[in-house]
Amino acid sequence: VPGRVDYSLYVITGDKFSRGRPLVEVVRAAIEGGATVIQLREKDFTARQLVDAGHQLRRLTREKGVTFIVNDRVDIALAVEADGVHLGQDDLPVGMARKILGPGKIIGVSTHSIEQALEAQRQGADYIGVGPVFETRTKDDVQAPVGVDLVRQVASVVSIPKVAIGGIKAYNVEEVIAAGADGAAVITAVVAAEDISGAARELRSRIDRTRR
Amino acid sequence: VPGRVDYSLYVITGDKFSRGRPLVEVVRAAIEGGATVIQLREKDFTARQLVDAGHQLRRLTREKGVTFIVNDRVDIALAVEADGVHLGQDDLPVGMARKILGPGKIIGVSTHSIEQALEAQRQGADYIGVGPVFETRTKDDVQAPVGVDLVRQVASVVSIPKVAIGGIKAYNVEEVIAAGADGAAVITAVVAAEDISGAARELRSRIDRTRR
Ligand code: NI
Repeated sequence: VPGRVDYSLYVITGDKFSRGRPLVEVVRAAIEGGATVIQLREKDFTARQLVDAGHQLRRLTREKGVTFIVNDRVDIALAVEADGVHLGQDDLPVGMARKILGPGKIIGVSTHSIEQALEAQRQGADYIGVGPVFETRTKDDVQAPVGVDLVRQVASVVSIPKVAIGGIKAYNVEEVIAAGADGAAVITAVVAAEDISGAARELRSRIDRTRR
Repeated sequence: VPGRVDYSLYVITGDKFSRGRPLVEVVRAAIEGGATVIQLREKDFTARQLVDAGHQLRRLTREKGVTFIVNDRVDIALAVEADGVHLGQDDLPVGMARKILGPGKIIGVSTHSIEQALEAQRQGADYIGVGPVFETRTKDDVQAPVGVDLVRQVASVVSIPKVAIGGIKAYNVEEVIAAGADGAAVITAVVAAEDISGAARELRSRIDRTRR
């Protein structure tokens, strides 16, 4: 149910940052460390590879009770029975994704400004990503950091869950949660860590501590 | 209705080969010249751009009574209400696409061997592409030409419609139709032509003449 998702620690896959470790093992360790949402995001995979990886992650996340989201591709989200899809500003519009997915699925949207955040909410998104908060080079389409201030501003006007993203590490995660984010999304801070579950655990404990 | 499609002249878009002419005008001219199927295939477009182009082409093809297919993306095919989707060997498997699309939509599959052709038919494809018949550099993932012989062999064992593809021009289209193809798929032979509708008309008349 979209309304009851725990967005606290939202881990996005990044196979090329994972030091050759199998995707499913990386995700298993992230969940062990406290990841509450897993997003499959592999821009270099073919659809067939996404389906294969998606099936494995769906099985694992279902077993662990963790929310599973697919990046960009609504068709692949449906094919692997993911809980939802995450859309960028260049992806399918929310309304179209909703029509294809039906009402029971989660739709998240990347936003980089107050206007985009409000627009995503208006269009019926279940949650938004807000960022990049800090400097990051993980994504190919790098944008200027929006800063913690945008998280604070968005938090004051947008009522759906807000996940901060972009350059978030253990040393700055408390800032974004204190600014009003419902969760923090990370790629390398978890998947590139030598100790994946340890890195996730540290982030999760800082997030939980800051929020209470 | 998948069973009643005329695959005679199957024109695939290729915006970068179209000499800067607007996609919808290129397609309009192709239809004027006798294209019976239009496939939207733009690997460099974002999903948002595909949706925009898809809407325009859907409006036009519906008005003209021409079949409209979207390459690769089942979600975009649904979003723009295309008649179906065309899948490569690395795309979603036919069964999954069918589950998402429902029974009323067309699913085509690219095949490069007898085995792949039979497998696509077994999985419930509505038609197959067979190729590349001749040398071509239009697609990024260039494969060795399979030759007209493969078209002939596939035609003798596969009962669903077969569309020959790859390096087909006015001077060799009769060969592939004579070999048993139900139609010919082209990109540059039409979209890169100075006279688009003239090029389509020439192909179509050779196809019709060979088949009767
Ligand atoms: Ni995207």
